Amino acid sequence: MAKDTLEKLAKAIAKKKIRVIDLTQTLRPSTPVIQLPPQFAPSSPFSISEISHYDEKGPAWYWNDIALGEHTGTHFDAPIHWVTGKDYKDGATDTVDVQRFVAPAVVINCAKEAAKDEKFLLTPKHILAWEKKHGQIPDGAWVLMRSDWSKRTDPALFLNAKEDGPHTPGPSADAVRFLVEERNVNGWGVEAVGTDAGQGFAFEPAFPAHTLMHGANKFGLASLCNLDKLPPTGAVLIVTPLKIERGSGSPVRVIALVQDE
Amino acid sequence: MAKDTLEKLAKAIAKKKIRVIDLTQTLRPSTPVIQLPPQFAPSSPFSISEISHYDEKGPAWYWNDIALGEHTGTHFDAPIHWVTGKDYKDGATDTVDVQRFVAPAVVINCAKEAAKDEKFLLTPKHILAWEKKHGQIPDGAWVLMRSDWSKRTDPALFLNAKEDGPHTPGPSADAVRFLVEERNVNGWGVEAVGTDAGQGFAFEPAFPAHTLMHGANKFGLASLCNLDKLPPTGAVLIVTPLKIERGSGSPVRVIALVQDE
Repeated sequence: MAKDTLEKLAKAIAKKKIRVIDLTQTLRPSTPVIQLPPQFAPSSPFSISEISHYDEKGPAWYWNDIALGEHTGTHFDAPIHWVTGKDYKDGATDTVDVQRFVAPAVVINCAKEAAKDEKFLLTPKHILAWEKKHGQIPDGAWVLMRSDWSKRTDPALFLNAKEDGPHTPGPSADAVRFLVEERNVNGWGVEAVGTDAGQGFAFEPAFPAHTLMHGANKFGLASLCNLDKLPPTGAVLIVTPLKIERGSGSPVRVIALVQDE
Repeated sequence: MAKDTLEKLAKAIAKKKIRVIDLTQTLRPSTPVIQLPPQFAPSSPFSISEISHYDEKGPAWYWNDIALGEHTGTHFDAPIHWVTGKDYKDGATDTVDVQRFVAPAVVINCAKEAAKDEKFLLTPKHILAWEKKHGQIPDGAWVLMRSDWSKRTDPALFLNAKEDGPHTPGPSADAVRFLVEERNVNGWGVEAVGTDAGQGFAFEPAFPAHTLMHGANKFGLASLCNLDKLPPTGAVLIVTPLKIERGSGSPVRVIALVQDE
């Protein structure tokens, strides 16, 4: 490896030869939050409370207090979020290996399929077709499912709750099993409010993107946007969860580095 | 610039030829928060409230709600935090240029001076002496003041409040003016609870690391740690504030990329 990689990176960023793409939804009180059946405790939406605004409470300064769920808005799921990952010593936001915060990303484009079918499920067949075109998913890579779901700016359409539960795209249990067992991914990321398909509660196992991914000490990313601005391969994702003591996850500002060909 | 810089970066990270250094304090209820005179409104400490823990409230999952000030723990100061930066359209956490989230860092080692003098002030003379040894501060770089202050694990000693205000090291007004007018920095970062020296309220101008830096649309970083693990030059800092709508700042997980020689 060239010894001047970081120097080249810094120069390329400064000259915008490497572009920083923001994959993050804005945090505001209307930011959609996952809705659970009423027998389970809910996670809080984002709230903000002004402390001072260049006024008598703080003549020269403006600042706010904020409150939110660890899994509100664009967020990171740590392995201990799920019972299958509970025993990983490096499974919490303050104990995960920081080396994993910078990793390559591959993007599987399911936008057309999700436009036709709100309950579209990515299967191993789709992944293998993608690999035939773009090469095998590299070790340690994020696998991101582009669905264009983030373009649903109406929170009701984004959550898309129906009588039988949410209708949102996601991975089949077999797809998650393939990524965990046949590939060595860093984690799984989506545009929808959670990493599992809206109907994932009925899969076998239930919520496979949680049960299997976190059971294998892998990460999750949800409520991403701008995946349509990433190439299928070659982007580097930077995901730095807040260092919450024993945190199960964290709201996060996700960025991708993309190099123009 | 080589077209494979990102590919080399990803490989070097995977092989730990480029190491990721965590510059972040853990967020917990005891995380120190800046203390203001009583006539001003205070910022909130960190608090965490469990939603479920693999129990009847959520059989398979563990998660928490969190609350804190935008400027609690290791945090990012956006230009609109200060009245001098209030009119910058790209001065809030949701409007800043994301290209600036990845930038080189230089580290000025003031650990010995701060150990001898709790009110040690960095001056232009110190900066020029550093530059004589390490070269001019590059355009767009973070300037980080290493004071080893983060090794004060007792919150009282970290804040170090005295009858005449806090005794903590920081920059002189002239040092900040030099960095803003004679150099083109991305921002200014410190290990203490705020970017200004504890006695900065009495400087001319008051709070120069806020007044002058943010007045010039520059960023701030406070409560950093592990600066003793960075080289004087050559590290790349990644600072990704939460995308809070009209946020004045944000708790942040700051990481540095460091390449072994």
